[in-house]
Amino acid sequence: MAKFMDVHSGFVGVTEEQLREAHERDLAVEASEGVHFERAWLDPESGKVFCLSSGPSKEAVLRVHEKAGHPTTEIYELPIEIE
Amino acid sequence: MAKFMDVHSGFVGVTEEQLREAHERDLAVEASEGVHFERAWLDPESGKVFCLSSGPSKEAVLRVHEKAGHPTTEIYELPIEIE
Repeated sequence: MAKFMDVHSGFVGVTEEQLREAHERDLAVEASEGVHFERAWLDPESGKVFCLSSGPSKEAVLRVHEKAGHPTTEIYELPIEIE
Repeated sequence: MAKFMDVHSGFVGVTEEQLREAHERDLAVEASEGVHFERAWLDPESGKVFCLSSGPSKEAVLRVHEKAGHPTTEIYELPIEIE
């Protein structure tokens, strides 16, 4: 399993409740792709969303977002993580 | 205290050890700005680094990176976070 960060744009003015609803749609379909979304962060001013996930491939993560109705093409594999 | 994600580009081929050294330089100076860097993730293929931090302002976070020798201008405040 690899770790990924994907980035969405255009979520200007989105509320926490709306982000949670979108995230719940990811969680509802993620198992079909072997993906798990760990956390998501939103900057409602710029409209950027960052999603941290684990899964078998970039393509699998992007398919989950597509099935959930909020596709993106910007994703990075993160083999290196430090705390 | 607010939460932030900043993004660096150009770290192509950087190793875990090199990222750790860079992160240690942040940790060495962060207290002077009231900032704490929680985690950092690197995609050595695209050269992107994502840093998750908390602190009083975007400017304070960026000053830490500048003092540590790896400035960036791309930063987002994250008032909304979900798990």
